[in-house]
Amino acid sequence: MTLILGLDPGLGTTGWGLIRAEGNRLSHVANGQLKTDASEPLPRRLSHLASQLEALLADHAPAAAAVEEVFVNKNPQSTLKLSHARGVALMCAARAGIDVGEYAPTLVKKAVVGTGGADKSQVHAMVQRLLPGCKPAGPDAADALAVAITHAHHLASGHCGLR
Amino acid sequence: MTLILGLDPGLGTTGWGLIRAEGNRLSHVANGQLKTDASEPLPRRLSHLASQLEALLADHAPAAAAVEEVFVNKNPQSTLKLSHARGVALMCAARAGIDVGEYAPTLVKKAVVGTGGADKSQVHAMVQRLLPGCKPAGPDAADALAVAITHAHHLASGHCGLR
Repeated sequence: MTLILGLDPGLGTTGWGLIRAEGNRLSHVANGQLKTDASEPLPRRLSHLASQLEALLADHAPAAAAVEEVFVNKNPQSTLKLSHARGVALMCAARAGIDVGEYAPTLVKKAVVGTGGADKSQVHAMVQRLLPGCKPAGPDAADALAVAITHAHHLASGHCGLR
Repeated sequence: MTLILGLDPGLGTTGWGLIRAEGNRLSHVANGQLKTDASEPLPRRLSHLASQLEALLADHAPAAAAVEEVFVNKNPQSTLKLSHARGVALMCAARAGIDVGEYAPTLVKKAVVGTGGADKSQVHAMVQRLLPGCKPAGPDAADALAVAITHAHHLASGHCGLR
């Protein structure tokens, strides 16, 4: 039995989703969205995010974590903000002693829906089908659960996305 | 008397420079470059960077910190890596209870050399002129000292780059 934490880091909202994997059988444990206050200075928002992540990691003690890879897209400035939050999230995982798998967004879609070209709504619908009883707190929590599912598949198939 | 820590965050090398400001008089205290091991996974590199920054902040207890603003430039993937390290650096400063000023690179050049179009070698030469006896540990340490000088000027002139 492995507890896997999926993370979808963001400066304003960081989604998280915790699943239990027993071989190929997955079940939902918990999910949620961590928020920071946009009226606060950037360093304080990052420090607040770190405190929330540390509490989450201490509460649940997952054995592994996973995030999506990040690329510079059509909105470079928002990708930079995201990368600040992502750096803090990866650091918190490392400090909790857990390795972090990184997966390309198309790989997450393929793992959850079966095709790398799936849209967000299909991914979110499949997350709820693959994890019966799971009600994602929002789209970021659903994305976090999707990357946790991806990591579970890769751990089960023997090749994980660790780097 | 104010101790100001300038930081030039990077994943591989983070430059730092500590200066003392007494009104308009500046003096050099210390500088250096923090390194992380490129063969380690990204989360562990970020955690190692955080530990080094925490030790530095605890040793010197600066009253303020400053960094350059970051933009997506010709190498987006390296800017993303830099932003991960920068997020960790800003978080460490916030946790140490100090505010962080952010300055555009052209503003740093203007503060140190007098013109926003100055090249790096002019900036580094002026850092050593403005801080007699200072020997920067490398280009990243010199950049960190330059942003510390910029912050000192702005604190002295009453408008600082805090956000």
